[in-house]
Amino acid sequence: MTDSWRDHVRKMYASAIGRHRRELITPALILDLDVARRNLEFMTKRLSTMKAKLRPHVKCQKSVELARLQVEAGAIGVCTATVWEAIVMRRAGIQDVLIANQVGGREKIAALAHAARQGGLTVAVDHPANAEELSKATQAAGSKLDVLIEVDVGMGRGGVRSVEAALTLAHRLAELPGLRFRGVQGYEGHCMLEPDHALRIQKANAAMEYLGTVIDRLAAAGFRCEVVSGGGTGTYDITGNNSRVTELQAGSYIFMDNFHGGLVPGFSRSLTVLGTVIIQHGNTIVLDAGRKSVGIDFVLPSMVAYPFYQARYFAEEHALFDVDERCSLKLGDTAELTPGYCPSTVNLHDAYHVVEKDTVVDIWPIVPRGPGHGGILNDL
Amino acid sequence: MTDSWRDHVRKMYASAIGRHRRELITPALILDLDVARRNLEFMTKRLSTMKAKLRPHVKCQKSVELARLQVEAGAIGVCTATVWEAIVMRRAGIQDVLIANQVGGREKIAALAHAARQGGLTVAVDHPANAEELSKATQAAGSKLDVLIEVDVGMGRGGVRSVEAALTLAHRLAELPGLRFRGVQGYEGHCMLEPDHALRIQKANAAMEYLGTVIDRLAAAGFRCEVVSGGGTGTYDITGNNSRVTELQAGSYIFMDNFHGGLVPGFSRSLTVLGTVIIQHGNTIVLDAGRKSVGIDFVLPSMVAYPFYQARYFAEEHALFDVDERCSLKLGDTAELTPGYCPSTVNLHDAYHVVEKDTVVDIWPIVPRGPGHGGILNDL
Repeated sequence: MTDSWRDHVRKMYASAIGRHRRELITPALILDLDVARRNLEFMTKRLSTMKAKLRPHVKCQKSVELARLQVEAGAIGVCTATVWEAIVMRRAGIQDVLIANQVGGREKIAALAHAARQGGLTVAVDHPANAEELSKATQAAGSKLDVLIEVDVGMGRGGVRSVEAALTLAHRLAELPGLRFRGVQGYEGHCMLEPDHALRIQKANAAMEYLGTVIDRLAAAGFRCEVVSGGGTGTYDITGNNSRVTELQAGSYIFMDNFHGGLVPGFSRSLTVLGTVIIQHGNTIVLDAGRKSVGIDFVLPSMVAYPFYQARYFAEEHALFDVDERCSLKLGDTAELTPGYCPSTVNLHDAYHVVEKDTVVDIWPIVPRGPGHGGILNDL
Repeated sequence: MTDSWRDHVRKMYASAIGRHRRELITPALILDLDVARRNLEFMTKRLSTMKAKLRPHVKCQKSVELARLQVEAGAIGVCTATVWEAIVMRRAGIQDVLIANQVGGREKIAALAHAARQGGLTVAVDHPANAEELSKATQAAGSKLDVLIEVDVGMGRGGVRSVEAALTLAHRLAELPGLRFRGVQGYEGHCMLEPDHALRIQKANAAMEYLGTVIDRLAAAGFRCEVVSGGGTGTYDITGNNSRVTELQAGSYIFMDNFHGGLVPGFSRSLTVLGTVIIQHGNTIVLDAGRKSVGIDFVLPSMVAYPFYQARYFAEEHALFDVDERCSLKLGDTAELTPGYCPSTVNLHDAYHVVEKDTVVDIWPIVPRGPGHGGILNDL
């Protein structure tokens, strides 16, 4: 289904190709490929001095085209948040895919075990009961699945809560057919929200130091960690320099947004949402791009051309700004918004309007969009 | 495209039909039709004592099946936030559709004017320049379009900002070919967020009193308001009793959610999102239903079975709760969440799993999903 859906999306938005980025039907999601390429290059350059390799998180972009660009730029594969994202990426030819999350529920586990027949899939586990379900499913599907033990390094979400629990799980994994232990994942997500850079370094280092202890204890028990996966865009320059970490799960670096832009320098905004001024009274202007087209998580979006205005609010279909004489926008004009948060923005749209030199050159479908399986299950 | 897309969505999720509501692939959007029907009946009963008729806002539900149920229950038509929603509703046979919002941008205005050839469409205007664009487009399409003057009644978003501006716009509309003035819209959106009921009554009445002044001044100038449209679920029992208001734009009443549930009594929650416990450590459980599947606007979602727990947070793919001995959920169990806000929840999903007596009886596509035109434009 995903291939026919991809074709369908391309056709739906094909009339945008060849247009200037300011002349699109709004709200429109725009990917400036020139800027995204510069972000790729900057990340490649930065990582060249670090030991860790990049495994970009595709929950941010949900695009096989972007994933391929990331792999061409040196990424060792990708990571995903869901089994459906992982299946889409494997089918698109990405050779090494990590589901950096627990997979639960009978059918999602079965889909994962089925997809594992083609190899190239790793999943995070943090509980013996979940590992047992995965093992049973691989037996039924006749497949083998690589696993990382997720270790809670302070975020308090996924991950075993102690060294002892990590050891218990490693021993259990060794007993379970169909599963192969490859290492650990420790995601220091609690550090991403720390705006103070010195404090972020301190927190991220503490998280990785604890992960190092777990790795040592696992090694002492005979479980060597070939893979140590962690990090995000907000900590890539800290965690990427940690001597234990082998791969970084940064994803937002390719787009940047108002949230991440405040955390790490050197990247530019490649993702925007174009809106049209549909309301104008006095100093108030309203664009037709609200919470149903642009992610406002953590930080509000802003206008690219007028970054100094703080939005009054984002309604479902409205972005409201109180402006002054510095703003020349008139009713019917279009303006680009920088999202507050890119992953939730992308998730709302059918496709990227891919722009080079300010002109739309391609339509890249966003797949899998939405929380459902979107028909992927029916194709297995 | 919308019809073939609807068929496609039905096929994608067809395997859910016949299952118990707790046995779905998660995250899954569930519409309890038994509860929704009770909400419809309760609203019909409440409105039977009021002068205003119901024009439910379909931005909340994006479903032609639900719109038809609402019209069967006595609604005079529907209102929408976008031109694409309006086109979908007209095509589905809803006879009277109001776009309760400004439509801007060349192609969206052209699409509106084209769709107006079939009649049954009204749009809000609040600016002479926008009215002129609409007039030109109807001329080009050979159509006529009904319009309401939107009056800002205190929200500060859409709407003319003064009685004089309303009069100026009414005079301009009378000169413009293709447009027919039918009345006014005054949306007291600023009152919906007022939790104190007495204060909400006071604010909503003040808003409608001002709208009454505008109506009187328009009438004195020869512009009779056949339609006076306003209200939402949070104010329906106030605005619906206002003697000037002819129609109410409430929409969320059919679902209710944690936001609206705190505002108006008598309705029950018909919309939920099913999640699976994918992580469990000590007292912490994590469901696989985060911000990419359930709207957290204004108020956080809660578990239907354990409404007394406040979520610690919602990540993109995770709902995290700290529970105690009252909670019997185990790894792999499913649990339903009541959304914080329904309109943003629905917008994330492909389809409703429609449930009667706890069993899925149908799949209802969510159309148009997403901020793009989704191919609707290509069919015009």
